[in-house]
Amino acid sequence: MHVVVLGAGIVGLQSAWHLRLKGHRVTVCDPDVAGGATYAAAGMLAPVSEVQFGQERLYPLLVAARREYPRLVEEVGRATDLPTGFLDNGTLLIGGDRSDLERVRDHARVHTEYGLNIQRLATQEIQQREPFLNARIAGGFAAPDDAQVDPRVLCVALRDALSRELDPTEFPGVGPAVEWVAERVERVTGSADGPYAVHTDGGTEWAADRVVVACGMGCTSLNGILSDLSLDLRPVYGDILRLRPRDPVGADRKPVLSSTIRATILGRQVYLVPRDDGEIVVGATVREDGLDGIHAGGVHELLEDAITVLPALRHFEIADITARARPVSPDDIPYVGLIPKAPGILVSAGYSRHGILLAPLGARLGAALLSGETLSSEDAELLAAMNPGRIEREAAPNHSLTQKGPANGNHHR
Amino acid sequence: MHVVVLGAGIVGLQSAWHLRLKGHRVTVCDPDVAGGATYAAAGMLAPVSEVQFGQERLYPLLVAARREYPRLVEEVGRATDLPTGFLDNGTLLIGGDRSDLERVRDHARVHTEYGLNIQRLATQEIQQREPFLNARIAGGFAAPDDAQVDPRVLCVALRDALSRELDPTEFPGVGPAVEWVAERVERVTGSADGPYAVHTDGGTEWAADRVVVACGMGCTSLNGILSDLSLDLRPVYGDILRLRPRDPVGADRKPVLSSTIRATILGRQVYLVPRDDGEIVVGATVREDGLDGIHAGGVHELLEDAITVLPALRHFEIADITARARPVSPDDIPYVGLIPKAPGILVSAGYSRHGILLAPLGARLGAALLSGETLSSEDAELLAAMNPGRIEREAAPNHSLTQKGPANGNHHR
Repeated sequence: MHVVVLGAGIVGLQSAWHLRLKGHRVTVCDPDVAGGATYAAAGMLAPVSEVQFGQERLYPLLVAARREYPRLVEEVGRATDLPTGFLDNGTLLIGGDRSDLERVRDHARVHTEYGLNIQRLATQEIQQREPFLNARIAGGFAAPDDAQVDPRVLCVALRDALSRELDPTEFPGVGPAVEWVAERVERVTGSADGPYAVHTDGGTEWAADRVVVACGMGCTSLNGILSDLSLDLRPVYGDILRLRPRDPVGADRKPVLSSTIRATILGRQVYLVPRDDGEIVVGATVREDGLDGIHAGGVHELLEDAITVLPALRHFEIADITARARPVSPDDIPYVGLIPKAPGILVSAGYSRHGILLAPLGARLGAALLSGETLSSEDAELLAAMNPGRIEREAAPNHSLTQKGPANGNHHR
Repeated sequence: MHVVVLGAGIVGLQSAWHLRLKGHRVTVCDPDVAGGATYAAAGMLAPVSEVQFGQERLYPLLVAARREYPRLVEEVGRATDLPTGFLDNGTLLIGGDRSDLERVRDHARVHTEYGLNIQRLATQEIQQREPFLNARIAGGFAAPDDAQVDPRVLCVALRDALSRELDPTEFPGVGPAVEWVAERVERVTGSADGPYAVHTDGGTEWAADRVVVACGMGCTSLNGILSDLSLDLRPVYGDILRLRPRDPVGADRKPVLSSTIRATILGRQVYLVPRDDGEIVVGATVREDGLDGIHAGGVHELLEDAITVLPALRHFEIADITARARPVSPDDIPYVGLIPKAPGILVSAGYSRHGILLAPLGARLGAALLSGETLSSEDAELLAAMNPGRIEREAAPNHSLTQKGPANGNHHR
């Protein structure tokens, strides 16, 4: 089958990877590979730290997705010589004062509930692990199984893995090298069950047996048979900084931070994600103010809180500030499912702040669904939670989406 | 005469302008026109606000330079249709608390000493003039004769004015359009009195009757007869932000700030320079830490203080953050003078934090000196204060510089 993937963010690229592994011929359309929300993301693989309270339906997805990463990284690593950006460095959850620590403790309880490894640390232990942290931190917890992946690095590796001819003895039944189209898709036409025609703003047209719609906020402005897709997605903006130490980290110079830090400081959240080259990613604001650009007040607060947590950051260089819109659904859970009126088209979008973590799960399940495979009951349950049909748009009640497809006949709301 | 100008920052461009007005043929060499310290500068034309205490020899230069701007802007404005970026919007000097206000008062006294217009404002008057300022400001002063020029805008205008054929009835005796060489000059060779040969990193060579060395920190790494120039210049880094309002300023939307603000907040300095399109320039750090890049702690403090002064800035977009090295002499006064061992070569560098303000003075006097004109006694005195020979480098006592030239026989130390 020829599958055209709309969008080359973390979801589109991993979807293309799974589809190629299943033997499909894949074309990926995006004028700016990994340049959207993926480009901003820190890439924490921290199932519980990420969620907000009351998102019980989201936890199991995040926990399951965390388990997907080792396999993805191993597979991609076998297909390319490039680094995948995966780092198994754990998280410290810390609270600035007693009241902050109380909130962190609540988060820690959720770890335990979901069977995740979490350890209370004495302040001396925190200082021993991370001697450069502000000594006045009230306390914290270690989540040693958390990891991170640098999305920019991983996407370069994925792109390379997708572009190379792969050895079928190593990757049995693998499809051909992916074709890249650096154009934006404007509309998809065709009959309900396909084949489809994918039309780009460059005026080219691509025939497709199947289509994956993984273009984030772009999903809401497609024409043709996707014009009444009516996904309830809103842009939630985030600002994120990348700070670099003055002197490169190396054999003779240790980094000032080794664990990822999730801190609550006077009620505000900030995270610090240290890369293995010494770069520290500081994020992230959560804004619904419509500002595409970098938000001055947000950057101020991030720097304020990050420097409070790790005073040495004051002397770092601001290497990059990026602002992007995250595509967010009303319940913060992505939409992964087939379109009822065009069941050869898969939607995989709305990953919110969890895109990097959830991508391997959404991509694997979406690829299986599109290929008509039979899913395990556990996978079917996970997929059901992401059923686009669960949310009815008031404005367009007749155009709901469903996961009804070859392998999953249940329609969940 | 053919004059080659090394460096197309604010000083090189204005030097080229004055030389062209005198009828010379001018070639300007720079791989990055107006891309150095000029690109960062806010462009406040505020003679006294800018200086630090104890720089008595600098004040008269700044005061004299402020008077040069109207003529420069008028001349350049006649030669091009482009805006010059000049705005006559005055400064408010404000103090955050009583102790800050005491420091501002000291600065205000210097205004009075130099005959500059300065008025004490009641806090109600400040609020009336600038209603969006933090209402808890202790007090301040108005310096209504201060102005600003947007260096990026002015340099585009200067470049255009230099590149056009000009009408000799409008500009009597004007030289031909300037020739631009987008290459870095590596060395200057030739006999003491010229002609000289200017060699670029692009491998080209330009014959020159006279040379202007106006390449800032680059002046310290020239070879040939300039290899023992031994200017005592050090890089003093600055970070500066450009913030933009969410909604463009226009007929129906007033800017949140009209005067330039120089604030002292808990002992720290910050300035806010509002452009006529609503952009607000926030600066600037003063660092000698050798970091070329953007300093995280510096940006944090600038945002902190700027938002304290003008809380609405929190909602602005960070359009730009720039870090550059200012070329600074030991006494913060530029070097403007001829090279004793090659008196056809003029040095015009080391303008420190005052480059935009001082440029028209340094450029006019330097061009006159290089052209062998007789200076007024006032001009001769101003030039004498910038005599490069005033500072002897310990390492190279025999290579001091002097302004000894056709019009100025005194050697000042």
